Amino acid sequence: MIDKVIKQIETNQQATVDRLLDFLRIPSISTDPARKADTRKAGEWVKRVFDGCGIKNEMLETPGHPCILADTGPAANGGPTLLIYGHYDVQPARDEHLWNSPAFDPQIRNGSIYARGAADDKGQVLTHLVAAEAWMKVAGKLPIRVKYLIEGEEEIGSPNLEPLIRKHKDKLACNYVALSDTAKLDANTPAITYGTKGLVYKEVTLFGPKQDLHSGSYGGTVINPGNALAALIASFHDANRRVMIPGFYDDVREIGDTEKQEMGRLAFDENAYKQYVGPDVLDGEKGYSTLQRRWIRPTLDVNGMFGGFTGAGASTIIPAKMSAKVSMRLVPDQSHHRISEAFDKAVRERVPKGLRVEIAMHSFCSAYVSPLNSPGMKAAADAVAAGYGKRPVFIREGGTLPILPLFKEVLGADSLMLGFCVPDCNAHGPNEFFAIDDLHRGSKAAAHLLQLLAAS
Amino acid sequence: MIDKVIKQIETNQQATVDRLLDFLRIPSISTDPARKADTRKAGEWVKRVFDGCGIKNEMLETPGHPCILADTGPAANGGPTLLIYGHYDVQPARDEHLWNSPAFDPQIRNGSIYARGAADDKGQVLTHLVAAEAWMKVAGKLPIRVKYLIEGEEEIGSPNLEPLIRKHKDKLACNYVALSDTAKLDANTPAITYGTKGLVYKEVTLFGPKQDLHSGSYGGTVINPGNALAALIASFHDANRRVMIPGFYDDVREIGDTEKQEMGRLAFDENAYKQYVGPDVLDGEKGYSTLQRRWIRPTLDVNGMFGGFTGAGASTIIPAKMSAKVSMRLVPDQSHHRISEAFDKAVRERVPKGLRVEIAMHSFCSAYVSPLNSPGMKAAADAVAAGYGKRPVFIREGGTLPILPLFKEVLGADSLMLGFCVPDCNAHGPNEFFAIDDLHRGSKAAAHLLQLLAAS
Repeated sequence: MIDKVIKQIETNQQATVDRLLDFLRIPSISTDPARKADTRKAGEWVKRVFDGCGIKNEMLETPGHPCILADTGPAANGGPTLLIYGHYDVQPARDEHLWNSPAFDPQIRNGSIYARGAADDKGQVLTHLVAAEAWMKVAGKLPIRVKYLIEGEEEIGSPNLEPLIRKHKDKLACNYVALSDTAKLDANTPAITYGTKGLVYKEVTLFGPKQDLHSGSYGGTVINPGNALAALIASFHDANRRVMIPGFYDDVREIGDTEKQEMGRLAFDENAYKQYVGPDVLDGEKGYSTLQRRWIRPTLDVNGMFGGFTGAGASTIIPAKMSAKVSMRLVPDQSHHRISEAFDKAVRERVPKGLRVEIAMHSFCSAYVSPLNSPGMKAAADAVAAGYGKRPVFIREGGTLPILPLFKEVLGADSLMLGFCVPDCNAHGPNEFFAIDDLHRGSKAAAHLLQLLAAS
Repeated sequence: MIDKVIKQIETNQQATVDRLLDFLRIPSISTDPARKADTRKAGEWVKRVFDGCGIKNEMLETPGHPCILADTGPAANGGPTLLIYGHYDVQPARDEHLWNSPAFDPQIRNGSIYARGAADDKGQVLTHLVAAEAWMKVAGKLPIRVKYLIEGEEEIGSPNLEPLIRKHKDKLACNYVALSDTAKLDANTPAITYGTKGLVYKEVTLFGPKQDLHSGSYGGTVINPGNALAALIASFHDANRRVMIPGFYDDVREIGDTEKQEMGRLAFDENAYKQYVGPDVLDGEKGYSTLQRRWIRPTLDVNGMFGGFTGAGASTIIPAKMSAKVSMRLVPDQSHHRISEAFDKAVRERVPKGLRVEIAMHSFCSAYVSPLNSPGMKAAADAVAAGYGKRPVFIREGGTLPILPLFKEVLGADSLMLGFCVPDCNAHGPNEFFAIDDLHRGSKAAAHLLQLLAAS
């Protein structure tokens, strides 16, 4: 049967590409209030796929963007239940002038589809939809019971997903979660990701003078919130690039020697990585390799800064306020609650008396690590091997999937992360892309996964 | 004759107010390329005033905004020649939501006119135009030869004025320059300003990764230009708020004891100042009073910062670049050339290897101090006393008038600064205003000035 399913996927490759282009044309930017209707539209697009292949589904409303929940119903032959998770929302386009083609007008170049969301996560979500459709078409059913949870708020930290999962806990009950929102190790090396980082994302605003002041008449006589914010941010690192927030490293779990050795054996192409980020900017916490900094060390980064006069030319003002977006990536067993509190405390202690400080929390979650020896993990690795014709490596990820620790806590299920895009796919930056080959191989791996889990 | 001139000014007060409102409706924002035509319109408005009262004038083109040059021609009775300088361009409105009425829709509230440019400098320029008109109307001529130079690029550092002044040096020849682009000491104390600060205004951009990167996948492994810029700016001050640029204080001329004592005797209302800027933000270089910090100490301030994700909510990126606008206010005898070079050198030395730095110079000028014992200074003080019914105090100014050292160098003329607005008039901030009383008293002082110089 699996052969027919794979055949079905191969026969429909052109249609699959066209459907992804259609999906990518919807600017479902969840962080942008002006795109609320478009974001919903992408959710409706997903719903129509389930409707079209006869999988029962519903659209669950939230205070934000809706969630699509589908369920094939109990499988005749039993077997484990799989919950497939994904998201239909995307990052903003930003810096539109740096895109070689518009972010929401997908273009195919050199065998890849360029558009915002191509890899993160519309293209990767589509692989699982294509697999389901193929199974339904060929067999009239899936080999195991599969549930789908496709949300619209991943890029803003899934603020409404936790209550939804808790509320629909029984409906979502499963043995494993599978998702494709991570990457391969490199273009030629498929990978299963078994660990993700946590996140605390803050916005700090310092308020100084009652209003913008003429920098001639008032300069040097008042505390400038721009200078003060710079000093605050500078205080977050020492010369070795360690994060200088008291308690920041207290709960960091050191990884074992075996894992460390395996990480060292990975054919990580640091040179290609360097070429991608820029020739000279590679640097980080002293005493760790690039891969260790990415995967197992917590970090703090400025994501944006703004305030005062930011137009063209010169305007001589002392700004009334200045803001920075600052995010911290966490590792097991750092608690986002504790890190958030430690950050706020450090900020409040370091801001000069006379300035008022506001700290907003934009998103947060814990890190997650999946066991490497479960039957599900074996099935996932075999599925990727079958789809790609090459065995995957096991890697970690510097990014965040807030949903994983939540699935573990609420549903008791571990997650299988099958990544089909390349790591330098420009997720969140300009010219995001997804290789058409990966779209098709990923769809085949997704089809195999259902078969292999049935046999596990 | 002066009595009739003053009477003429008093009779036309309502018309004068209406004309200022009309002038203020033109959004002549010189820094904004989109306002180029509007800026020119404000220049044409000034030209029409001279045309209307029969003073010969011309519009001199520059590579930027044009300059109005008027000349009453040789006076029958000789006497000194006065060059009256002003500017018709204004700062951007910025933060429009903080304005109680639109920046370019002037409104009268509590006896003041609220609009961008009300005080800086359209309202104050108008006092001299009203004085000229009154003299022309009543006497058919002015008591001395007066030239007018009203430019449109003051708020962007007068980039094209220097070549223009050098080119038209003979046309502009004069004994004194008079201008009203400074303020009174406070609402009840008229003032002559005799010193202004210099300026070096830079924009620093740090370039890091080749493009914005996902802060999960790349955070902690690359130099973040946001964090680096914060550290750079933090390095510009020590804990005593002294500017930490090598050589910065080398050429600072310490003021004499007499001037220091006079400054101490001034009825400077620090409490009112504090209320205006905000209750707790008063602070600055250790060892100096608020007034000394404003007038005689050089400073460094961030005017704006921008880069990375600056929209609503969260976007997890490592920014490809980050920028700050940084300005330094200079005192005699600091050279803007030397300070500019010292700043650039410090920046380049402190930016981490691996980042590329670009430094743009937006504007610059030297500080200026006018002699207190000239006949012209005496006439100016007497004119303000006559217009306000109260003798002015002599003060310095933290702001910059790039034109003054240039007039001194090219024309050999010292400047008389008659300020009619209050210091907390919100020049450059939201809700800029000019008191109607000051408009009328200033016009009378301007009329007296011509008479008193004729007699000097």
